[in-house]
Parts: sequence; structure tokens; C-alpha cells
Amino acid sequence: MYVKKLPELDYGVSTTIKALGGKWKACILDCIYLEIRRPSEICRNITGLSLRVLNQQLKELEAGNIVYKKIYAEVPLRVEYYLTSWGESLWPVIVAMNEWGNAYRHHYGTES
Amino acid sequence: MYVKKLPELDYGVSTTIKALGGKWKACILDCIYLEIRRPSEICRNITGLSLRVLNQQLKELEAGNIVYKKIYAEVPLRVEYYLTSWGESLWPVIVAMNEWGNAYRHHYGTES
Repeated sequence: MYVKKLPELDYGVSTTIKALGGKWKACILDCIYLEIRRPSEICRNITGLSLRVLNQQLKELEAGNIVYKKIYAEVPLRVEYYLTSWGESLWPVIVAMNEWGNAYRHHYGTES
Repeated sequence: MYVKKLPELDYGVSTTIKALGGKWKACILDCIYLEIRRPSEICRNITGLSLRVLNQQLKELEAGNIVYKKIYAEVPLRVEYYLTSWGESLWPVIVAMNEWGNAYRHHYGTES
């Protein structure tokens, strides 16, 4: 049978694709990695991302334990997002995916 | 504005996700990386993958210049698939995605 060089290849890769799925998550993690932590700031920093969509993406990232939030009892309330250890360990994978994807895109001049 | 730590993050990551999209491509590249090159052999080695779906995936990988095929003028005709330089350079990204994804999956015992 299939003696995979990589154990459970179909699960490992698809899990990562699911964790990063969609157009925004990598950008949002990039912001948080850059210590841009408040939703309003993150929104201002990513073209085309609405607060509603951002909050949905943050909820998914939080549910997946890739980010966590701190709530400061201030008026108005202050909320900030941080990378969990899973978020931190995902970062080099995002960098590798980003580098390959951009080299490939520039070579083929595709906008996809 | 968004001074991304990673240039064109949204494009780079999504290009890689698109190149690897779906459940089968990473497994197919794994087979070819393991020098399992003929469609019939690849099919036998990946549970649940039909020849029809495999041929579709190989066509996409070929169109994306991630794999190429060699046709041997024999009877019956022999066709073998190889990784292009893009396929070769994608391999470490697949390994990184696979490792993160499996560690994450085992930690959360999810089947996703």
C-alpha cells in the first residue's frame, strides 16, 4: 500500500490549508505578528477587510487556538489579539508558503 | 497603510493554497517524489483515488508546471510523471505544512 514518505500527508497538509483557508487569515496573522493587535487597527491595515469579516475570521482563529484575545476593563473596552504557541509555530509555514507562492506568481505573472 | 512583514502575503499564501488545493495533490506529489510515476501505480498507492480524478489532478498539476510527463513509444504506451523544478521547490513547503498540520491534529485529536 502507499508507504508515504510523509506520514498522514493528506491529513497534515489539508489541516494546515483549513487553518489558513481563505484570503484573510494569513494577513491577519501577519498583522498580529507585527503587534498590530486591535481589530480596528487590523482593519485599517488590510485593504478590503471589513470589521464584520475580520471578527468572523478572528473567531475562527480563536476557536482553532491559533490566536487568543485579552480584554482590558477600560472605557471604552479594549480588546487585543495575540498569537498562541500554535500561531507562533505556524508562522514559518506561512513564510514558506508565501515565498513559494510569490516566486511562482512572479514567474508566471499570474494574478491568482 | 499595512506595512506587511511579508510582501504580498495574501497573494503568496493563496497561490500556494491554490497550487496544492484539494485533498489529493499533496499525496500525488508525494508519490512522484517517491518515484511512483505511472498513473496506474499512483492510483494503487492512494486509497480512494480513482483514475479519473487522478488524471484530472495530474492535468492541473501539469498545466501549473508543477509536474511534467514523459511518454514512451511502447505497446502499450507508457506514461510517467516527474516533478518540475517548481514541483521540487514546493516539496519543503509541503513537508512544513504537513508537519504543522499533523502536530496540530494530534494535539486536538481532530479528524479535520
